[in-house]
Amino acid sequence: MKVLVVGANGQIGKHLVSFIEDSDSLEAKAMIRNKEQASFFENLGAETVVADLEQNIETIAKAADGVDAIVFTAGSGPHTGKDKTILVDLDGAVKTIEAAKLAGVKRFIMISSFDTSREAIQAAPSSFAPYVAAKHYADEWLKSTDLDYTIIHPGALTNDKRTGQVKAAFEVDRGEIPREDVASVIVACLENETTIGKEFQVVTGTNPIKEGINSI
Amino acid sequence: MKVLVVGANGQIGKHLVSFIEDSDSLEAKAMIRNKEQASFFENLGAETVVADLEQNIETIAKAADGVDAIVFTAGSGPHTGKDKTILVDLDGAVKTIEAAKLAGVKRFIMISSFDTSREAIQAAPSSFAPYVAAKHYADEWLKSTDLDYTIIHPGALTNDKRTGQVKAAFEVDRGEIPREDVASVIVACLENETTIGKEFQVVTGTNPIKEGINSI
Repeated sequence: MKVLVVGANGQIGKHLVSFIEDSDSLEAKAMIRNKEQASFFENLGAETVVADLEQNIETIAKAADGVDAIVFTAGSGPHTGKDKTILVDLDGAVKTIEAAKLAGVKRFIMISSFDTSREAIQAAPSSFAPYVAAKHYADEWLKSTDLDYTIIHPGALTNDKRTGQVKAAFEVDRGEIPREDVASVIVACLENETTIGKEFQVVTGTNPIKEGINSI
Repeated sequence: MKVLVVGANGQIGKHLVSFIEDSDSLEAKAMIRNKEQASFFENLGAETVVADLEQNIETIAKAADGVDAIVFTAGSGPHTGKDKTILVDLDGAVKTIEAAKLAGVKRFIMISSFDTSREAIQAAPSSFAPYVAAKHYADEWLKSTDLDYTIIHPGALTNDKRTGQVKAAFEVDRGEIPREDVASVIVACLENETTIGKEFQVVTGTNPIKEGINSI
């Protein structure tokens, strides 16, 4: 199964491409914004393709040529300019979803924010609310398609070392999770079709990742 | 027919409330952000209600209590902070649409931007693209509902005196239109049920407004 990683050069993305290349059943195609970012991925044995989320759907669909799944882990982050929040976190995500349809790629994994509900937009501090809203509308768009989606809502991201253990369910108490473990959760979803059509929150817990994901 | 005007204190909104009050068949309920804005509308004979688009759906639905139609002409404008672009132009619009459903108000008129297509987002200068994207997603959300909607896409807005004459169709050449004429176009849509389920671009032209709107 070949996987287009959108946002490969991000912190989760780099772990993810590495773990995909470690897997027997998966291979990665890293979507990057410029050629200078390629060597990191080529050293891992991964294919690369240059494309930008601010380009059009057709360009992104071309990047998805020949893959079986797409992981959207790009993000302007909650602290970039709010213009990028709407153009990358919302519109970039929607264009990637539409590109998946155009390229005939059914499997789509979205890395969302911990809580993207309507209530979470209202409750968020004003500096964070636009980001939550962008992620909310991207998730809603994906759920309205007939793609084989999984939406992952990770807790507060840290750069701590991987624990390999999670708590995952439609709703869990707020907590942290290392980015490395999020990457492992994504791989576990790619390898487990029971995650199709589901969304779940995930934080560090006491279940080995494969088991934790299988129980959602 | 009682009409909730969302964004009543805006430039189009003020003309609109005035024209609604001039009409025999319509009356206005002006939604304003604070009590200090009320006197202008009370002097026109219009009812007012204080509510804010950054509040929740239930609050907006309460403002819509007892009305037969909602006009969304609020806008942070293309030059406000991009946080407001997503929270007002997109999320505020969607909350108003959801509030219409909750309050059982079927008729909904959206004042959009001239071109909110996917292509227009891509073609827009980077400072304007977030606004176009926000309006695009708000329009898409409305079209996915079963409300009796009309989406008006006015040309470049001016403060020129009203001409009373327009060119209106699904697609027209770019042009200008005075805000006062946009307000008359909204009234014409409220009074003409053939505009339900339609969207159209409108600029200054040579057809009297009622005729121009009837031909779309």
